[in-house]
Amino acid sequence: MIRILVIHGPNLNLLGEREPGIYGLSSLAEIDEMIRQRAAEIEVDVRISQFNSEGEMIEEIHAARDSADAIVINPGAFTHYSIAIRDALASVGVPTVEVHLSNIHAREEFRQKSVIAPISAGQISGFGAYSYVLGLEAAKKLREE
Amino acid sequence: MIRILVIHGPNLNLLGEREPGIYGLSSLAEIDEMIRQRAAEIEVDVRISQFNSEGEMIEEIHAARDSADAIVINPGAFTHYSIAIRDALASVGVPTVEVHLSNIHAREEFRQKSVIAPISAGQISGFGAYSYVLGLEAAKKLREE
Amino acid sequence: MIRILVIHGPNLNLLGEREPGIYGLSSLAEIDEMIRQRAAEIEVDVRISQFNSEGEMIEEIHAARDSADAIVINPGAFTHYSIAIRDALASVGVPTVEVHLSNIHAREEFRQKSVIAPISAGQISGFGAYSYVLGLEAAKKLREE
Amino acid sequence: MIRILVIHGPNLNLLGEREPGIYGLSSLAEIDEMIRQRAAEIEVDVRISQFNSEGEMIEEIHAARDSADAIVINPGAFTHYSIAIRDALASVGVPTVEVHLSNIHAREEFRQKSVIAPISAGQISGFGAYSYVLGLEAAKKLREE
Amino acid sequence: MIRILVIHGPNLNLLGEREPGIYGLSSLAEIDEMIRQRAAEIEVDVRISQFNSEGEMIEEIHAARDSADAIVINPGAFTHYSIAIRDALASVGVPTVEVHLSNIHAREEFRQKSVIAPISAGQISGFGAYSYVLGLEAAKKLREE
Amino acid sequence: MIRILVIHGPNLNLLGEREPGIYGLSSLAEIDEMIRQRAAEIEVDVRISQFNSEGEMIEEIHAARDSADAIVINPGAFTHYSIAIRDALASVGVPTVEVHLSNIHAREEFRQKSVIAPISAGQISGFGAYSYVLGLEAAKKLREE
Amino acid sequence: MIRILVIHGPNLNLLGEREPGIYGLSSLAEIDEMIRQRAAEIEVDVRISQFNSEGEMIEEIHAARDSADAIVINPGAFTHYSIAIRDALASVGVPTVEVHLSNIHAREEFRQKSVIAPISAGQISGFGAYSYVLGLEAAKKLREE
Amino acid sequence: MIRILVIHGPNLNLLGEREPGIYGLSSLAEIDEMIRQRAAEIEVDVRISQFNSEGEMIEEIHAARDSADAIVINPGAFTHYSIAIRDALASVGVPTVEVHLSNIHAREEFRQKSVIAPISAGQISGFGAYSYVLGLEAAKKLREE
Amino acid sequence: MIRILVIHGPNLNLLGEREPGIYGLSSLAEIDEMIRQRAAEIEVDVRISQFNSEGEMIEEIHAARDSADAIVINPGAFTHYSIAIRDALASVGVPTVEVHLSNIHAREEFRQKSVIAPISAGQISGFGAYSYVLGLEAAKKLREE
Amino acid sequence: MIRILVIHGPNLNLLGEREPGIYGLSSLAEIDEMIRQRAAEIEVDVRISQFNSEGEMIEEIHAARDSADAIVINPGAFTHYSIAIRDALASVGVPTVEVHLSNIHAREEFRQKSVIAPISAGQISGFGAYSYVLGLEAAKKLREE
Amino acid sequence: MIRILVIHGPNLNLLGEREPGIYGLSSLAEIDEMIRQRAAEIEVDVRISQFNSEGEMIEEIHAARDSADAIVINPGAFTHYSIAIRDALASVGVPTVEVHLSNIHAREEFRQKSVIAPISAGQISGFGAYSYVLGLEAAKKLREE
Amino acid sequence: MIRILVIHGPNLNLLGEREPGIYGLSSLAEIDEMIRQRAAEIEVDVRISQFNSEGEMIEEIHAARDSADAIVINPGAFTHYSIAIRDALASVGVPTVEVHLSNIHAREEFRQKSVIAPISAGQISGFGAYSYVLGLEAAKKLREE
Repeated sequence: MIRILVIHGPNLNLLGEREPGIYGLSSLAEIDEMIRQRAAEIEVDVRISQFNSEGEMIEEIHAARDSADAIVINPGAFTHYSIAIRDALASVGVPTVEVHLSNIHAREEFRQKSVIAPISAGQISGFGAYSYVLGLEAAKKLREE
Repeated sequence: MIRILVIHGPNLNLLGEREPGIYGLSSLAEIDEMIRQRAAEIEVDVRISQFNSEGEMIEEIHAARDSADAIVINPGAFTHYSIAIRDALASVGVPTVEVHLSNIHAREEFRQKSVIAPISAGQISGFGAYSYVLGLEAAKKLREE
Repeated sequence: MIRILVIHGPNLNLLGEREPGIYGLSSLAEIDEMIRQRAAEIEVDVRISQFNSEGEMIEEIHAARDSADAIVINPGAFTHYSIAIRDALASVGVPTVEVHLSNIHAREEFRQKSVIAPISAGQISGFGAYSYVLGLEAAKKLREE
Repeated sequence: MIRILVIHGPNLNLLGEREPGIYGLSSLAEIDEMIRQRAAEIEVDVRISQFNSEGEMIEEIHAARDSADAIVINPGAFTHYSIAIRDALASVGVPTVEVHLSNIHAREEFRQKSVIAPISAGQISGFGAYSYVLGLEAAKKLREE
Repeated sequence: MIRILVIHGPNLNLLGEREPGIYGLSSLAEIDEMIRQRAAEIEVDVRISQFNSEGEMIEEIHAARDSADAIVINPGAFTHYSIAIRDALASVGVPTVEVHLSNIHAREEFRQKSVIAPISAGQISGFGAYSYVLGLEAAKKLREE
Repeated sequence: MIRILVIHGPNLNLLGEREPGIYGLSSLAEIDEMIRQRAAEIEVDVRISQFNSEGEMIEEIHAARDSADAIVINPGAFTHYSIAIRDALASVGVPTVEVHLSNIHAREEFRQKSVIAPISAGQISGFGAYSYVLGLEAAKKLREE
Repeated sequence: MIRILVIHGPNLNLLGEREPGIYGLSSLAEIDEMIRQRAAEIEVDVRISQFNSEGEMIEEIHAARDSADAIVINPGAFTHYSIAIRDALASVGVPTVEVHLSNIHAREEFRQKSVIAPISAGQISGFGAYSYVLGLEAAKKLREE
Repeated sequence: MIRILVIHGPNLNLLGEREPGIYGLSSLAEIDEMIRQRAAEIEVDVRISQFNSEGEMIEEIHAARDSADAIVINPGAFTHYSIAIRDALASVGVPTVEVHLSNIHAREEFRQKSVIAPISAGQISGFGAYSYVLGLEAAKKLREE
Repeated sequence: MIRILVIHGPNLNLLGEREPGIYGLSSLAEIDEMIRQRAAEIEVDVRISQFNSEGEMIEEIHAARDSADAIVINPGAFTHYSIAIRDALASVGVPTVEVHLSNIHAREEFRQKSVIAPISAGQISGFGAYSYVLGLEAAKKLREE
Repeated sequence: MIRILVIHGPNLNLLGEREPGIYGLSSLAEIDEMIRQRAAEIEVDVRISQFNSEGEMIEEIHAARDSADAIVINPGAFTHYSIAIRDALASVGVPTVEVHLSNIHAREEFRQKSVIAPISAGQISGFGAYSYVLGLEAAKKLREE
Repeated sequence: MIRILVIHGPNLNLLGEREPGIYGLSSLAEIDEMIRQRAAEIEVDVRISQFNSEGEMIEEIHAARDSADAIVINPGAFTHYSIAIRDALASVGVPTVEVHLSNIHAREEFRQKSVIAPISAGQISGFGAYSYVLGLEAAKKLREE
Repeated sequence: MIRILVIHGPNLNLLGEREPGIYGLSSLAEIDEMIRQRAAEIEVDVRISQFNSEGEMIEEIHAARDSADAIVINPGAFTHYSIAIRDALASVGVPTVEVHLSNIHAREEFRQKSVIAPISAGQISGFGAYSYVLGLEAAKKLREE
């Protein structure tokens, strides 16, 4: 069974409360529930965690070398400047799917640039919580090919 | 039943032959088959067309006002400069999902900018032919909400 | 009698339906009627056409060498990138007035740059359908001097 | 009867003498005459003044709050940097039409940028003295709608 | 009684020792004392903390949702790149006053850009330790209006 | 008794009328009253003036050499381009506090750059009329050190 | 016998009439005659076509997969923005020689950038109609090696 | 006898007091004396004035049409943005020599750009008060050729 | 005996596994061994640590005030954006040698810029693990002078 | 008989040895032989030299005033920065053809800009040693017209 | 007696022949005569040389340490890119006056930037051969102060 | 025995005299002595030369193909613009170590960019004369691996 690590970036623990006009009304718990449900349907093993700390996120990614077949990551604000997260993902060599709740390409100039994208397999952006669901399917597909 | 218009941009008729290292080995006919199969599974109505001409693509988009509930578009090279395609999509007001075979954010600088993205609901990039399958699901989801 | 060719660019066939907050509520037919009425008042001969295709618009412009004394053009989205339209206008040597419904200088950055302007006699921007009426008068004036 | 304030920017008092290849041979008095004549024809009340001082121009604009229904302004060199003129125009809330003798979009790079344009209703550029005539008509139209 | 959270960014624990030509001779303890004294005078409740870790600072900001009425923050070096801190402040919706010891607008180019400023109520920069005192008053004022 | 010169830049005489969504509802007379009241409380001598003319503002600044111990200035639109005001301030050597009603760092790109800032002691931006009050206190503090 | 496809871009049908100071006095028919003559001399088979439409040019290029051994193309205005033409040429894998009548590197800034050049074998620019003759020889040489 | 108009820009009335490390210790009166002395030696007629107001400087330049054969101008801060001064100088057609006390090319980036230079005959920069003396000689030479 | 603190930045714990084409085959333990061996040869005291967390690295640097005579740091990805690390190093005033395994000046544009370099004594880049050995010698030299 | 001067820029003496993947396997002697052979065929007189020194190349160009009817130059690395070579070519007024072995428009960004091109008659780039042969023909053609 | 070294840069040996519209009709010999004559009048010792080679010019500058009290240099095309000439002038510490025949600030963009200016005492540009005469006087003045 | 060629760039012959605040007090002879001493210690053969001429430096590099196993080069001012030196080093294929006396990354913007770095094995910058000593060791190490 394919093992997928789902990582939520900083501030995503406030989802539902935080600027709902942009990020939607679902809480992170509800999104996690939606992810687990689809994981069950498409028969993949899923592990989910959220980090406000860049250093801890790096260590989770390092650990994925042995414990995950693919990563689905919403790097949050780290998307736009954390070369350290990028290097961590490149280091472990686990195929990565980058997801975003909002369509980052339709927002402020600085949010349209992802330092993570060049080392990801692909990017899914703008479908709210459903971006994770699509990301899960994409990650599964990547491992089946 | 939700009606989805799938549009392929210029040069995509050569898929399978064209730079397979970047775009994969599937022909456009095979991709269309994959799209139709998933459309049947998720029970949406699908109409597919390919254009090398910007003007004809604009007219197909205009026609979608009455005949489609959502658009899944891979604008190909037009992604990067055709403001006319962008305006056509904005004019008809049909929710749009932008898809790309390759991960455009990991390619040449000029391919990382999409003039279409700011008026799309979201973007899916980098999963080969499977980007269309995910796009179909995303489009369906957009109409169900 | 002075012969003026009026050209509408891509997507303008949707006027009235399309983003009325920006482009107003008049349909293209109503605008054409307004143009014809003023043409009658100021006694100029007017010919009007609309194009979604860049290639066809180029050929209409070429034909103007023999059949028009001035051109009033709203190049729509082509304003911002079609060097081919610019070269076509420069090639035929018929004096050209560039018009825009909305004030392009008060919109998105990319809409503030016109590749057509450097080869036009002048530009009129922001008065809705009335921009064409002013353009007609300006074109007439250009030929009378 | 609609009252229109026409403002000429710095150096325009030298018209006719100053670089006639660009600005034409009419003196400012002749242009003012042409403006007054059309004003009579279209039945608007017109008041005209010229300023070399930025501070005095600002005060004239401030005064327009009570005495004008629209402004037709050729800001001259101030077009390109005077944020104070822009703010003055924005402050008084009188609809403004920006006019230029020469086609500023076909000249030096720095003349292609107008800091006034984003707060104007529209811009007319390149028809010599006739730009003012068109501007007068546009201003009248703005108040009639 | 209004509750204000004061946050010191990275390296500020070295104040007094660190480049006194730029940052002054007061230690952080002395600044905190000055803040507490003025808080007493203007009768606000104050809570002060310092962070070298971005992740921990984010969590302190999150906690402020329930425990603070305003935030006075000197983000230190994070001012210039931490979009995660910016998003944290935007997420919690507590009005924020950004303060700096030195006048960042008079220093190196990269220190003149604050990614925090667009989501702050205001910014106070350049008055040494007294910037915090002014920030406290400003924060109080923000809640009284 | 410390003498502080408060200078309001162009268009500020229209406060209260001018774009109240950005600048608030207080008139300049009300702000001046607020400034005078706090001046009395903290026992400083205050002199206030407003200029629409750059030239006259420069001369007021020059006069401050003999008659003021500190300057609190809201340069208005001059903030962004008037190197002459900057040089005037640098010439007289009187310590200067730059204040802004709105948070200029959260507005249009061109308002985020101050040519005055590099020669100011510090900058206070975004607290409406209260920015002047804070500026007064900061100016007093500068002279007491 | 080596088969070479010669493609003329938009507006080149007006050659001889169009800005002869830049493009010379030869008509397109005369240039085609010159091309055919040299083709006969160096014993290559030549097929020539001209397009004002981007979409039709793309389809001609696609057809070249089976019917041409090399392409000599003067993309005209498309040189500077048509990524779709670039992708078409890259897709078919037929070696391409880019030619220009005028020396594009000595003209306006925007004409100095070719989006076609990075996928061409080489570029010949500035020798008027003779650029095509040299292009023909270069194309033949490419296939002989 | 050749008549030369010498114009000092804003803030130059403070010379000697103003940042003497950059501008030297001579007062403007002393510089004017030095200019008058050399004028006598080389037998030119000289008229000197200083302006803090852009508007008044423009009018002095306009007046030079009839009363001066050449202009020696130190535009001070206006050097870097006053297109109005530039246009005034271009309008009157009197040959102009631009002078600067300090070497503007060795100072801050923004001081290295002169908007006046493109319409001057030449520029002399960096020799303190002696720059005016050289400018006087250069102006005389210009009229003798 | 000179005490040198060696700091490894984020992801360096994966050395040997991570992109060996760029970073070489040595593990971090092997590099540390190499460092310790040379330290013994040149008779300096060495202390080595690795951090994935920016905050912890800052605190280690702070501690160096009392416990180290020089720092040899490979900031890894932090090189390119962590102004907080830069400020920490500047704060403690211990001379710093910046080292990199790969030649950062021959890699992606964003890796060629170091925000650390302006406050380092010097930089050694591109010699694999041997960069540390050279860095150790350089650090020793810095303290001996 | 037309006299053509062929100039090879710096490092071209190493051809054949130097990066053959980019520059091909022919030595400079072999290229010179190919040039001489074609010169004989098309009956032009040819003189060939190679320079590693910019100063000596300038003097060879100066000498061409009297001894050459056209210049074919591959400026090598000087293409991208030597304004002195450009000025030398412009000074002597002998028509110049710029040639390059590799397609410089398909290489690193800095190699795509030629400071020589604006003063050349035309440019031929990307056909290996055959670029010189085409250059010879183009030079002959330039003199025959 | 003050000893002044005058240096002419590359291509200046062609003066009189070379683009006389820009550089005037005087030959270098005539200019040198004019320099010597003025040197005699103002009683300075002058030594003049011209270089097409950067390396030889550097060595002449080095030699000036012992043999010249000031340098008057027209670096020609080297003005715009030769950091080596700049460093040579900075190394020897002899005060330098930079002169140009044409007004470089009124020419192509790339000629407006001088890498020499930041280390010169001053710059004189645009007075033809007379720029050297002014430069000589300025250099003398520099040594007398 | 490994043969290392050490190359000093332009102006380095003035070391000790030249701006000692930046480049230190050692003369080039003293540095050469230091290099030779360490060469003896680590048992490598060393050959040292200095060039003010770019052309001669290129020829020395060419000669290294047969006579050196590694190059240690301080390109001086050529670092920042001499693509010809870069190409020479790339042509000969001898591994190269780039060294600098001062830390170029902490100096003027234009000195932070090295056109040599992308083709060097590595770079050592900022340790004064000791940079060469480290460069020697690095070069030896490169050949031993």
